[in-house]
Amino acid sequence: MKKENNSRPLILVTNDDGIKAGGLEFLVKVLKQFGDVVIVAPNESYSGMSHAITVKTPLYAKLVKEKGGVKLYKVTGTPVDCVKLAINVLLDRKPDLLVSGINHGTNSSISLHYSGTVGAAREGALNQIPSIGFSLLNYRHDADFTEASRIAEHVVKVVINDKLPSGTFLNVNIPDCDPVKGARVARQSKGKWVEEFVEREDPRGRKYYWLTGHFENMETEAKDTDEYYLNKGYAAIVPCQLDATNFNLLPYMKEQNYEL
Amino acid sequence: MKKENNSRPLILVTNDDGIKAGGLEFLVKVLKQFGDVVIVAPNESYSGMSHAITVKTPLYAKLVKEKGGVKLYKVTGTPVDCVKLAINVLLDRKPDLLVSGINHGTNSSISLHYSGTVGAAREGALNQIPSIGFSLLNYRHDADFTEASRIAEHVVKVVINDKLPSGTFLNVNIPDCDPVKGARVARQSKGKWVEEFVEREDPRGRKYYWLTGHFENMETEAKDTDEYYLNKGYAAIVPCQLDATNFNLLPYMKEQNYEL
Repeated sequence: MKKENNSRPLILVTNDDGIKAGGLEFLVKVLKQFGDVVIVAPNESYSGMSHAITVKTPLYAKLVKEKGGVKLYKVTGTPVDCVKLAINVLLDRKPDLLVSGINHGTNSSISLHYSGTVGAAREGALNQIPSIGFSLLNYRHDADFTEASRIAEHVVKVVINDKLPSGTFLNVNIPDCDPVKGARVARQSKGKWVEEFVEREDPRGRKYYWLTGHFENMETEAKDTDEYYLNKGYAAIVPCQLDATNFNLLPYMKEQNYEL
Repeated sequence: MKKENNSRPLILVTNDDGIKAGGLEFLVKVLKQFGDVVIVAPNESYSGMSHAITVKTPLYAKLVKEKGGVKLYKVTGTPVDCVKLAINVLLDRKPDLLVSGINHGTNSSISLHYSGTVGAAREGALNQIPSIGFSLLNYRHDADFTEASRIAEHVVKVVINDKLPSGTFLNVNIPDCDPVKGARVARQSKGKWVEEFVEREDPRGRKYYWLTGHFENMETEAKDTDEYYLNKGYAAIVPCQLDATNFNLLPYMKEQNYEL
């Protein structure tokens, strides 16, 4: 690919709901004012794919359209595949910013571990690119992203100036209300999914299970968590790190004779 | 399912290489001495699946065999699906310990983000179960897990006594040498994957891409990381946390006007 001379920031956009998702369209409208936008997104929904990569099959990438200066590629893989393929193959220079979303549904608290939207943002950070994942707390296809777009615009503007410290990405969740009261920096709440599997029988008489269940916030008294602010009508901005080490435990484990 | 009276610890075993993997067999041999073992693992290899869950299709689970008191279930899903299905459907009581592996190949440094082996251990911790992921730095099917088994035995023995603090799981990587010199508590090294996609053309003339690439340790001078100890011939035990919040950044972000 030819290298273009361009001083506008290059913004890579992806998601996990696929190229036809409404949240993606709203996000691109916001981002066009800040730089040159290239969309590289899954050809279909890849919800719940976390940080998964495709290792057993090859990937196809296709330029679907170029409209208003925005190229849209679809990829036959996960959100993280999309980021890797964009950076290594499809783009002619390293993006200055990666934005993932706007996801249809929440990725707050521990849900970030399951999220393909967040996975893509984490992969951006692993490639030393300032990266943000946006999610709206509304799962419906016809969700209204107007307020979410306003919040995204604010956060993107700050990140473009700040660049974000290395090794960090943002997980931004936005409540489904109008107006959204504002945006607050928060920590990830402790929570759990209370799982329920629906058990059914297929036409051949074999039992099968659908994953379902609901989230429970385990820190209902805390006033500095993403869950707290979302419940109060504020967007929650959680700075997330790539390093999973629990540093507080290192001396404890040495005392407990984990070493051999 | 009937509740059995049993004072031996219940140990749930899973992996991401599938029910036929050699590493799984070695692990079960180690674990049988510590408690009652139930294996719930993917029916085939789910490498690189991270913390992914299956949301678009239902899951099937089948009791493949019961041998020497060990039940083996295969599941048509990811390692995290296996853990969820085991806890919610297949087991008659909550496991006292979850062990994932022994993975064929490394999951040190940032590779933990892509790993299904680690994903399963993280899911155990999300369910308040002491959980460990083991990986051997040898990708081959015929890898020798003898030394890795010895290390696993030591770590499991300590975890059964210690239980591990809540919100923490262990990512244990074991070098492919004989003898392994010992085991060291370590932090996750900073690293990156230098990606290379192999580009080919299919019989219909369409370009496709295979993910490949190699890992680069970004902290070659550090002497407290998993990469350091692995290179020295020691197993590396990294205590990992479920909370991804970068707490150091919270005040910084407020100063930078991220809030609205």
